[in-house]
Amino acid sequence: MASPEIEALTQALARLPGLGPRSARRAVLHLLKKRELALAPLRRALEAVEQTLSTCQLCGNVDTVDPCGICTDPRRDARALCVVEDVSDLWALDKSRLFPGRFHVLGGRLSALEGVRPEDLAIDALVGRVAAGGIDEVVLAMNATLEGQTTAHYIAERLERFPVRLTQLAHGLPVGGELDYLDEGTLAQALRARRPVG
Amino acid sequence: MASPEIEALTQALARLPGLGPRSARRAVLHLLKKRELALAPLRRALEAVEQTLSTCQLCGNVDTVDPCGICTDPRRDARALCVVEDVSDLWALDKSRLFPGRFHVLGGRLSALEGVRPEDLAIDALVGRVAAGGIDEVVLAMNATLEGQTTAHYIAERLERFPVRLTQLAHGLPVGGELDYLDEGTLAQALRARRPVG
Repeated sequence: MASPEIEALTQALARLPGLGPRSARRAVLHLLKKRELALAPLRRALEAVEQTLSTCQLCGNVDTVDPCGICTDPRRDARALCVVEDVSDLWALDKSRLFPGRFHVLGGRLSALEGVRPEDLAIDALVGRVAAGGIDEVVLAMNATLEGQTTAHYIAERLERFPVRLTQLAHGLPVGGELDYLDEGTLAQALRARRPVG
Repeated sequence: MASPEIEALTQALARLPGLGPRSARRAVLHLLKKRELALAPLRRALEAVEQTLSTCQLCGNVDTVDPCGICTDPRRDARALCVVEDVSDLWALDKSRLFPGRFHVLGGRLSALEGVRPEDLAIDALVGRVAAGGIDEVVLAMNATLEGQTTAHYIAERLERFPVRLTQLAHGLPVGGELDYLDEGTLAQALRARRPVG
């Protein structure tokens, strides 16, 4: 029914995560009805990001400046480095403002199944950053999956010759988690890493 | 954390129906990662719609051509006119391809509470279309709300002097509806409009 232009817009929106064909259609209708208040601002925002978007040469974050806002933030502790698999992990950790240091994005995880080898990830660049000195601690914040942990082990081996403290995220019960609903792997980790009370 | 450009894009997306702040952030991340495959096509699609968007002078539909694709479609029956409150209703009816005629969008419903009067809606334009002749049937496809039905009654009065058949959508059980879960109003309508079996 809709014109080719409207159809193309619906399809472009439907490809976003979180939007399906139905909700994309509803979103398009909203944009069509509010041309000045919704359509034009969204188009301008996309344009601005598209023109300035770049990948940080230092850490692999995507931002509109290079080096990215995190790498150039003087309030951040340059001596602590948090290694993550993906930009989305960086955002998730940074949103909480829990980590005061800088980041290093690998761009994936080692995977024999998917044929991802160490040279496919930004591991050499990480070793280079650590070798350059000035870093005290490297937090290996890989996902708690088999592949994530394999990647963490590999990186730990590559970094063990440098005088840095290697740490990893704690495993255990998630906050609010009920024992009854947790998988055995998490329970085993929580039990193994049990701490004295008080 | 994010740059002002990325923040602006996140906010523009979060204002779309069906997307909240969290899913907007995920969508932005997707766009940033796939600059050529997602960001650029979406920006181009918005641009194309923005440049061609118009409201149909005949029926009030939004489309990228004026008169709209429905009004100029020669396969549609010009003798049947379906009156709807809003463009979204037109799309919902048209998507199903159940109605073979043309449409007329009122742009809302009469509402004493919200101060919407007949002259605020495209009712004079509707009367004009009917007065011009060539129309056999007018379907009043208002919502089954008090205000929708008030609007339908008002329009029926305005059109009763013309030689057209006035009809309205049937009320009753929705397909798949269980009596147990239906409101009293629907049940009353379904009972009142009961038909002989077979």
